[in-house]
Amino acid sequence: MRIALLGCGVVGGDVVRLLHTHAEDLTARVGTPLELTGIAVRRLSLARDLPVGSAVFTTDAYGLATRDDVDIVVEVVGGIEPARSWLLAALHAGKSVVTANKALLATHGAELHDAAAANGVDLYYEAAVAGAIPLLRPLRESLAGDRVRRVLGIVNGTTNFILTRMDETGAGFAEALEEATTLGYAEADPSADIDGYDAAAKAAITAQLAFHTRVTLDDVYREGIGNVTAADIASARAMGCTVKALAIAERSPDTPGVSVRVHPAMIPRSHPLAGVREVFNAVFVEAEAAGQLMFYGRGAGGSPTASAVLGDLVAVARNRLSGRRGPGESAYADLPVLPMGRTVTRYHINLDVTDKTGVLASVAAAFARQDVSIQSVRQDGHGDDASLVLITHTATDAALSATVEELRELDVVRAVASVMRVEGGEL
Amino acid sequence: MRIALLGCGVVGGDVVRLLHTHAEDLTARVGTPLELTGIAVRRLSLARDLPVGSAVFTTDAYGLATRDDVDIVVEVVGGIEPARSWLLAALHAGKSVVTANKALLATHGAELHDAAAANGVDLYYEAAVAGAIPLLRPLRESLAGDRVRRVLGIVNGTTNFILTRMDETGAGFAEALEEATTLGYAEADPSADIDGYDAAAKAAITAQLAFHTRVTLDDVYREGIGNVTAADIASARAMGCTVKALAIAERSPDTPGVSVRVHPAMIPRSHPLAGVREVFNAVFVEAEAAGQLMFYGRGAGGSPTASAVLGDLVAVARNRLSGRRGPGESAYADLPVLPMGRTVTRYHINLDVTDKTGVLASVAAAFARQDVSIQSVRQDGHGDDASLVLITHTATDAALSATVEELRELDVVRAVASVMRVEGGEL
Repeated sequence: MRIALLGCGVVGGDVVRLLHTHAEDLTARVGTPLELTGIAVRRLSLARDLPVGSAVFTTDAYGLATRDDVDIVVEVVGGIEPARSWLLAALHAGKSVVTANKALLATHGAELHDAAAANGVDLYYEAAVAGAIPLLRPLRESLAGDRVRRVLGIVNGTTNFILTRMDETGAGFAEALEEATTLGYAEADPSADIDGYDAAAKAAITAQLAFHTRVTLDDVYREGIGNVTAADIASARAMGCTVKALAIAERSPDTPGVSVRVHPAMIPRSHPLAGVREVFNAVFVEAEAAGQLMFYGRGAGGSPTASAVLGDLVAVARNRLSGRRGPGESAYADLPVLPMGRTVTRYHINLDVTDKTGVLASVAAAFARQDVSIQSVRQDGHGDDASLVLITHTATDAALSATVEELRELDVVRAVASVMRVEGGEL
Repeated sequence: MRIALLGCGVVGGDVVRLLHTHAEDLTARVGTPLELTGIAVRRLSLARDLPVGSAVFTTDAYGLATRDDVDIVVEVVGGIEPARSWLLAALHAGKSVVTANKALLATHGAELHDAAAANGVDLYYEAAVAGAIPLLRPLRESLAGDRVRRVLGIVNGTTNFILTRMDETGAGFAEALEEATTLGYAEADPSADIDGYDAAAKAAITAQLAFHTRVTLDDVYREGIGNVTAADIASARAMGCTVKALAIAERSPDTPGVSVRVHPAMIPRSHPLAGVREVFNAVFVEAEAAGQLMFYGRGAGGSPTASAVLGDLVAVARNRLSGRRGPGESAYADLPVLPMGRTVTRYHINLDVTDKTGVLASVAAAFARQDVSIQSVRQDGHGDDASLVLITHTATDAALSATVEELRELDVVRAVASVMRVEGGEL
């Protein structure tokens, strides 16, 4: 079984090392050796300490991906183009494809799946979501006889590290981000992580598998963690919660449709996701029959990602050897993706208020007018420092937004200091 | 695709309900309807509130399992015989098999796998270990390109409930067992759970998949939780640990071989397994490239187990439809299962000692003679209540046993109050 590798950075290098180190095991598990036929790189001159001869390297990725002596193409380049063109060409040339490219799958997944189906080959991408954590295979195979209600994921290590530090040390966002950068957990330009783009791509891919419905990056509502303050974290703590950046995909309970979103949220400390610290990832799944499941592990890094790529590679190679393809795209349910306004959840609202009699009455009336029911309210401080912390029962995002608009107009409300969703069950 | 169901108890009933409720989804996911052709039961007269006609029921399980109009046999009867004969007959008649029968797989797995291979059909058993938690599929597929070092599992809900109660309420074993019985978490005869037989079967199945080596129930060292005392739990707490009943399968670091065992152990509270409470199960996997992974969920109960059975059923049906079989038994590594004496771990030892000068010197000398290195020692109380709590560095089980024998002979040692293994990394 002859493999072409597109890209040879951190993940690609680890793929090469694993193929070499575990060659004997892989041969036994697949039934035939996995042979690395070629590696496409941008610069041939770069020194690489890898157990392969220099003859395997080429700068012609397109040529390699479509070469006659290649069976499976592994892509670890990332980004939309030229990866998209290379993989489409490979699929049309009858190669099976293993990729870790979440951005590509979340934007052009349908096109790639169609090409794989049309050519009777496999498209596998376990490494695209949550690195080494087996998630896609359990969703599309283990839970194939069940009905998934909701997926809550901590799928971005950078933001989870930052929020963990803020929670455990009381640091502010800027300080925690600086620490993440120093430790190499945040990139020089951290916006893909901080602003939730990375998590949104993973949410789209996960939602598609969980609900058998095509979901793209554009369908995902997205809020970053840049506005989470030390005060939010403290307020969460006061009510037995912690703040996590969550990727959420859920089936609407009352109308056919799914909601897919990425945003910071308060979750109870007793929730299994609350204990997921630093750069670890975890995905919590609620299914009708299986109940609550959680998958935990390292969501990024060269060797965990390479492990996921190799797992796919073994599966795809076995399929090819037996002359068939694995489960392809499943989009039969074709549910609508609901607009954010129709998403139903609970909210934590922190208001700076004047210290006058009747403040609570005015505030409560605003909630009532929008039909948003209040679960609890707490008044902190007095005088100029008075604040009101409210937790609502479930309400639509639209109703909550309208309530916040009304609150901003109230004389007794100086400012709406923060609004954060509350997820993960009863408090 | 025509299904025969052997057994219609709690799990079987839920399998029937899921097949009915999700019929449309299942048809879309498999590509053809899953039709329940027959259900073998012991008594036809039993009232069953199930969405199937009475004509599907039969008492002739053997006949049903080998009938011409059956493609897949699902077995949820449990126990060795007659399940073994039925499934062998089904496999030889060319049926694919899905089973939740851990005892059968842990004792006659090789025979069943051989029959499946000889007849070119599938044998799937995700439900046999940790209920709805996808574990077998990740081990045999997702990690197929990696090298598993160790699997630590909380795979028995009854014992985890009892130990959770002892930890959280200070209850003794008997009291916690009584509560578990009242709540229906422990059976009238709880020995299969308490004495570790249930966990040992799961450990054997897990070890086989993790290490590509045949492991049977007889290979598994087994200690129950009946001797865990409130004092052990308190002592664990004092050192930042909790006590869990673990199923452990690990590759020996220095010699080709695996160690498979079930026993109570202290683990640090910071370990992800420490937060797994009550009847929940979780399996922690350490792999070379993937690093630490954990799978968490409900390990028992009708509907979680039925969810796992249905996932297998969909996979097996898809395989049959495309005329091939999924990954079969993988036992190529054929590693020896090491005797318990060669297992290496750390130990917590609690000694009742006389309150004399030189006690520690005598005790330390006994450890030194067996080459067991002490990591920490703590002296509690004085006079007749004096006790010595020692934690060792890693040592073989044989060396530790010899040390304990020596300690029992010492004049200064009144009794070896408890010996418990310490797992899950540094304290």
